Amino acid sequence: MKRTEGTPAASGNCPPPPEPKELSPEEQKLKAEREARKKAKEEEKAAKEAAKLAKKQAQEAAAAVLVKESSDFEADSFGYWPLVQSEGGPSSGLKAAAKRQWVPVGQLDAKEGSIAFVTLREGTETVQCVFGDSCSKDLLRWLAAVPAESLIDVWGRIVSPQTPVASTTQRKELQGEKVFCVVKAKKELPFQLKDAMQPEDEQKEGQIRVHLETRLDNRCLDLRVSGTAAVARVTSEVSRYCRDFLHQHGFVEIHTPKIIGGASEGGASCFRVPYFNRDACLAQSPQLYKQMCIAGDMGKVYEIGPVFRAENSNTHRHLCEFVGVDLEMEIKEDFLEAVEVIDNLFKSIFKRLEVDAAKDSALIRAQHDVPPFVFLEETPRLTFAEGIKMLREAGIGVDTIPEDLAEFDLSTELEKALGRLVQEKYKTDYFFLLKYPAKVRPFYSMPCPNDPKYSNTFDVFMRGEEIASGAQRVHDAGLLRRRCEALGVPLEQLKSYIDAMDLGAPPHAGMGAGLERIVMLYYGLGNIRRVSLFPRDPKRLAP
Amino acid sequence: MKRTEGTPAASGNCPPPPEPKELSPEEQKLKAEREARKKAKEEEKAAKEAAKLAKKQAQEAAAAVLVKESSDFEADSFGYWPLVQSEGGPSSGLKAAAKRQWVPVGQLDAKEGSIAFVTLREGTETVQCVFGDSCSKDLLRWLAAVPAESLIDVWGRIVSPQTPVASTTQRKELQGEKVFCVVKAKKELPFQLKDAMQPEDEQKEGQIRVHLETRLDNRCLDLRVSGTAAVARVTSEVSRYCRDFLHQHGFVEIHTPKIIGGASEGGASCFRVPYFNRDACLAQSPQLYKQMCIAGDMGKVYEIGPVFRAENSNTHRHLCEFVGVDLEMEIKEDFLEAVEVIDNLFKSIFKRLEVDAAKDSALIRAQHDVPPFVFLEETPRLTFAEGIKMLREAGIGVDTIPEDLAEFDLSTELEKALGRLVQEKYKTDYFFLLKYPAKVRPFYSMPCPNDPKYSNTFDVFMRGEEIASGAQRVHDAGLLRRRCEALGVPLEQLKSYIDAMDLGAPPHAGMGAGLERIVMLYYGLGNIRRVSLFPRDPKRLAP
Repeated sequence: MKRTEGTPAASGNCPPPPEPKELSPEEQKLKAEREARKKAKEEEKAAKEAAKLAKKQAQEAAAAVLVKESSDFEADSFGYWPLVQSEGGPSSGLKAAAKRQWVPVGQLDAKEGSIAFVTLREGTETVQCVFGDSCSKDLLRWLAAVPAESLIDVWGRIVSPQTPVASTTQRKELQGEKVFCVVKAKKELPFQLKDAMQPEDEQKEGQIRVHLETRLDNRCLDLRVSGTAAVARVTSEVSRYCRDFLHQHGFVEIHTPKIIGGASEGGASCFRVPYFNRDACLAQSPQLYKQMCIAGDMGKVYEIGPVFRAENSNTHRHLCEFVGVDLEMEIKEDFLEAVEVIDNLFKSIFKRLEVDAAKDSALIRAQHDVPPFVFLEETPRLTFAEGIKMLREAGIGVDTIPEDLAEFDLSTELEKALGRLVQEKYKTDYFFLLKYPAKVRPFYSMPCPNDPKYSNTFDVFMRGEEIASGAQRVHDAGLLRRRCEALGVPLEQLKSYIDAMDLGAPPHAGMGAGLERIVMLYYGLGNIRRVSLFPRDPKRLAP
Repeated sequence: MKRTEGTPAASGNCPPPPEPKELSPEEQKLKAEREARKKAKEEEKAAKEAAKLAKKQAQEAAAAVLVKESSDFEADSFGYWPLVQSEGGPSSGLKAAAKRQWVPVGQLDAKEGSIAFVTLREGTETVQCVFGDSCSKDLLRWLAAVPAESLIDVWGRIVSPQTPVASTTQRKELQGEKVFCVVKAKKELPFQLKDAMQPEDEQKEGQIRVHLETRLDNRCLDLRVSGTAAVARVTSEVSRYCRDFLHQHGFVEIHTPKIIGGASEGGASCFRVPYFNRDACLAQSPQLYKQMCIAGDMGKVYEIGPVFRAENSNTHRHLCEFVGVDLEMEIKEDFLEAVEVIDNLFKSIFKRLEVDAAKDSALIRAQHDVPPFVFLEETPRLTFAEGIKMLREAGIGVDTIPEDLAEFDLSTELEKALGRLVQEKYKTDYFFLLKYPAKVRPFYSMPCPNDPKYSNTFDVFMRGEEIASGAQRVHDAGLLRRRCEALGVPLEQLKSYIDAMDLGAPPHAGMGAGLERIVMLYYGLGNIRRVSLFPRDPKRLAP
């Protein structure tokens, strides 16, 4: 099933009719059952819902030049197909349905050579389709009235034009003979795909620009835009690359509860959920639960799942619901053991995006022309203090960075500035910043051994923006209690968590990253809403 | 790092001391930085947090026979290790830390031959450890006072006893020479692991039975029980098998929003979430969103993620939050195309559980002795009407099954009875039931082509319990609107969804399954709470 794009038309193809498909025993059984039931009901006068529908559809299409209904693939050569309702076998009204064979647009292969051009699309694959001399004028008139974005089945021959087609993803061409509309799209679409497919930075004069809000309001149509579809696919791929790497490194995937009693990390910005007359909230991260799994001797765990932040942040990089990539692992001696794993994880993602997702990466770059993401085999791992030193030496933040760093954290702007300095000095868009001041990190972060003013923590940066935060955690229940008390974190909400540490938790470290941010920053998409399939922010709750 | 089990003791081992570890450039940089900072702060009189902690820990342990603190691996042979705080390198107080090498209990390999026995555990792997003549009496007295479930580092030699050790997972034995306690567990545990490890159906006289509620209240301790740990791991594996299969079959993973405006499928049993002064709720399934992705031309999509049900159901098989395995795919002609994919998906899971997860399957069966799950290469696909006929012929449900099935659905009891009949007739614990009465299925289910009283729907059964439901969906926006109106489903809450169908959605079908139910029924665990890591039901919100 292919879509008409721009100029109405059709796609797909079928080789010459094959032998009738053999039915599996189940299908034979179903067929027999269907036939038996059909016989018994012949007297029943109730008109069939399916037939009614097809009629209604035809009536609705009265405005079209030629309304032609068809359900016989062999006798007819064009028309609106009745509702596909799983008639399937040859006992049904769609006599020849079971005899058709389907070829995806991406897998067309030519046998022979033909003229009148229209573009068909299947996913992000496109092909030029020609209805020439052999087609009736009725067919051509009918086809011209089929709305763009309708779904169409085409029967035809693949030909190799002397000059290969350059405007579509397929160089071959389809010579159409029969064409049926399976699903008719609405005539008025919120925007035209050809407008939405324009590169973001080179809007031609007179070109209609499709704004992000319009795209998001009509996300299902936007998902048919090749650049958007490619972003959706690479986002899926990034989570697969994460899983592949983590499985190979002995991590076990966990699914921790999203509805929790008390705030997940003691913060205020969580969504409240009434739970059978009790107070509950949505987990801001799987932080405490993945640590509890470590206390349960699971060794190395990870989760890729939704996390929820009730923050009223309306920026290019904040969402109220996003996909967290969280991992936690036992360490023997040093949290750098975890830093090493996490660094290798990110590098494996970057490498695979260029190799395994090369086609989609190209589709994204065709629409968003941003310099390629650069990283080194040896990732710079700076300390927070070193980062501050670089900023000071460059004369940046002289008024805002205090002498005593004990309670200081980097602003978004300073992070970006540091990203530029690191990029100049090391020629990389990717680095780690280690050992943040303890007071700007959560209560469960382990203090540094030699200077408790700092902590065994880190952030990971891509293009000067934070994509992940991590740390060695406090595995000692006594120290954890003292830190909670010192920082005013209410202990009663953390009872399960501290109880778990009381059982004797091994030293451990981990991190949490944002899946959408990784994709946004790798391709330089500029807004996280381009990555989230159906983004949620303080203003957006639909679609 | 290994745990003492029952009798206090220790595990792991190290070959003779290797050359000092070479530091990577990053580590050298960090080291230099640390040393510089150290020097500058020598006058600072603030005592180090780490040293304080170790002291406090030692004081707390005053009840032990012999409190011995150690931080020198080379000079000492036993003692409580200070808090592991990532001192790491040789510049730190833990002088020899960087020289140690670590061998997992599961990978011990013998070199030589020795006597006084204790069991050590790492994950679900165990080894017998012997501290013999060469150890001081102080070490043995100290060791006897280390609480069970403490974490211990052991230095020793692997030996192959003439009679291989039968009581542990490792046949070799560890001859301990040095032993340090890294993390001390509380003396009083909620239950003893040896009690919790007993097979469920053969409680010995005098044996303390650990009830499910006690296990769940102390889930982190329960996760150290080999049977529970194995269930957690196979659950992780089942989602991996799903992903492997679906990726191989061209499915794209999606992450759909869990916070949605309006009820996800029009039902009443959803959790309400106030969302920036608006009403929202938690998705009861990704149903509408995965269909919207199909309308967006994503072709084949799946999601494995949390779904939420605010039903006050307190049964062995209901949870308020569980992991949904949802898929949706374009079809050409018939929803049996999707049934075929789903059937193959389940069979691939069953096969891999026996091969790839054989070790964990054995651990689970050691604790839960249930007949193995049986399935056929050719899965029986009965129609609902055929299922009813089987029940009637067996004289089951004669009083409850009406003559007219138009509004009838199977009760849990009838499902189980049908499961037994199918098992007797076909010798399988796994089958499909197709074409349910339309009125007992959701509004988006496609009516049957030949008899609109029935629908293109199906359920999947394991051991007579439903694990998945699926259907061809109504892709025609007009029919969808008429069905909503007929069934009283409010259209305004479904606007995004119906808008998406208006864009021209291809015919499609899919299903939703419960990850925990698959594991529960495959192994016959009897209660879904044994599978969920941290289960949520109307009464349980913690841990």
